[in-house]
Amino acid sequence: MLEEIGEISLLYDFYGALLPEKQREFLHLYHEENYSLAEIAELYGLSRQAVYDAVRKAQSKLGVYEDKLGLVARLMQNEALIGEIDEAIDRLVKEYGDNAELAESLALISAKAECLR
Amino acid sequence: MLEEIGEISLLYDFYGALLPEKQREFLHLYHEENYSLAEIAELYGLSRQAVYDAVRKAQSKLGVYEDKLGLVARLMQNEALIGEIDEAIDRLVKEYGDNAELAESLALISAKAECLR
Repeated sequence: MLEEIGEISLLYDFYGALLPEKQREFLHLYHEENYSLAEIAELYGLSRQAVYDAVRKAQSKLGVYEDKLGLVARLMQNEALIGEIDEAIDRLVKEYGDNAELAESLALISAKAECLR
Repeated sequence: MLEEIGEISLLYDFYGALLPEKQREFLHLYHEENYSLAEIAELYGLSRQAVYDAVRKAQSKLGVYEDKLGLVARLMQNEALIGEIDEAIDRLVKEYGDNAELAESLALISAKAECLR
């Protein structure tokens, strides 16, 4: 369940902007602000069921966007690669750390790789 | 004009999957296969105007997706960073190329950075 919430948060970060305003607001309150369905329903003067349906629909749309664009999958792939680059540079820094000039160049490369996250 | 076509191709690569099927087909034929509007119209038994309208609408949607998600802007930013990483590694390889072990490690980092493109 926690894993599912984490995944939906990630999908929301990427694709939330594509959702209709109301669905985006509900998902934000529910997943990011930890409002209950009942609290959101009260806030908007809707039934709990109506909010539940909108949340499910929005979650489903996020899944469809990921199926079509695959951004989250790509992000995770890139995260892994950047982690590997970082490790490789760390190893070189350890091995050649007495060469200050080389160590500085490696640190610069590492910083640029971090910006890719 | 050429620049615009290049940009639409890029937007299409990223967001084409979100377009309704027909609009996606038209854009593909028009921008990727270089069909004329008249040829597409004939192929689908539609008026040239109808195809033109669908193409404009689809192009406009691609622009809206980019405004909302900004993936192409991010891609270009990342391309620039990866280019800088490549250059920095090239400089190190030139400077420390006589150290075969170091050169090999740098080549590996460079290859991983390329996979991020």
